Amino acid sequence: MTVLDQLIKEFSRLPGIGKKSAARIVYHLLRTNPETSMNLAALLNTLHDSVKTCSICGSYTENDPCEICSNPGRDGSVVCVVEQSQDVQTIESTREYNGLFHVLKGVISPIDGIGPEDLTIRKLIERISSSRHGREIKEVIIATNPTVEGDTTALYLVRLLAHTGVKVSRLASGLPAGGDIEYADRLTLTRSLQGRTTISD
Amino acid sequence: MTVLDQLIKEFSRLPGIGKKSAARIVYHLLRTNPETSMNLAALLNTLHDSVKTCSICGSYTENDPCEICSNPGRDGSVVCVVEQSQDVQTIESTREYNGLFHVLKGVISPIDGIGPEDLTIRKLIERISSSRHGREIKEVIIATNPTVEGDTTALYLVRLLAHTGVKVSRLASGLPAGGDIEYADRLTLTRSLQGRTTISD
Repeated sequence: MTVLDQLIKEFSRLPGIGKKSAARIVYHLLRTNPETSMNLAALLNTLHDSVKTCSICGSYTENDPCEICSNPGRDGSVVCVVEQSQDVQTIESTREYNGLFHVLKGVISPIDGIGPEDLTIRKLIERISSSRHGREIKEVIIATNPTVEGDTTALYLVRLLAHTGVKVSRLASGLPAGGDIEYADRLTLTRSLQGRTTISD
Repeated sequence: MTVLDQLIKEFSRLPGIGKKSAARIVYHLLRTNPETSMNLAALLNTLHDSVKTCSICGSYTENDPCEICSNPGRDGSVVCVVEQSQDVQTIESTREYNGLFHVLKGVISPIDGIGPEDLTIRKLIERISSSRHGREIKEVIIATNPTVEGDTTALYLVRLLAHTGVKVSRLASGLPAGGDIEYADRLTLTRSLQGRTTISD
């Protein structure tokens, strides 16, 4: 197998890239100057060595603790629980949240054989119970995906955190911004009704 | 900028990959074992060194002349003219063609400042005029894309090859297999009418 074919095969294994897209990428690299490929290669080589997980929140970082955990300007009283590290970036991109994060590294999924002990749930409990006066964790926002697994995990966390005395909230589920009621599925519409917000009393 | 962000940026520069897909790919690589990234890096590093262009047809190859040009089993009397190297692979995948190829390395496009002299047209003429008896080029199939630029280039080649005495043909343009007349655009339908084939006389 030629380098060309091997590279197309490797690219087509990446998520979201099919065989045709992979070929397009490789031919594009061949046409552009070799530095682009070299640069990509160099970054790929250092990726696993330079990126670690934060010992506090579990998100990917190059410095431990991560930028968010080590920032004294962040509100230490709120912890947003997400499924995976990239969700931290997504929530950060809203610029609406100034608290801390906790990455579960998955969701409870009995079909895939993933139970609560496979996630970083114990560590979350430890973080809450060991949070000192003054920087005490007062609210946990559960930001798992609105899927069966995400909802199961959220429910599990709600029950587990009941005795700790912290406030537990969940991201609102409803119509996406710019969406159309006509095209909304029944479950989304049901949730947006159940979670309706009062405008005036 | 962190390695993570740099790598996301580099991936998002590749054709067909946006910022979100790039992030998804990089996080995927972080979750999978480091060998996948290393392997990809190694292939990218050798890409430009191992892949050259064939001195006869101009397609990408690791050996010069390429597999097709050096294969005595191929029909040397037909040359299929394509815009770019990947078109060779696409036509090869049909297993319908057993002739040779000629890669133009582009199309005539006055807007982009690309004229006939920027393509490998002179080389094509040389190939035709120097083809020896016994392995003489008798037909040139023009397989440029059915776009304005592709059609312009085809027309230019037809005129240029008129005096050479070789038969010149063009890939059929018409309804795509599995397509629907109802959804075909006017130009495609016009071409499929003009290029209609006789079933019985």
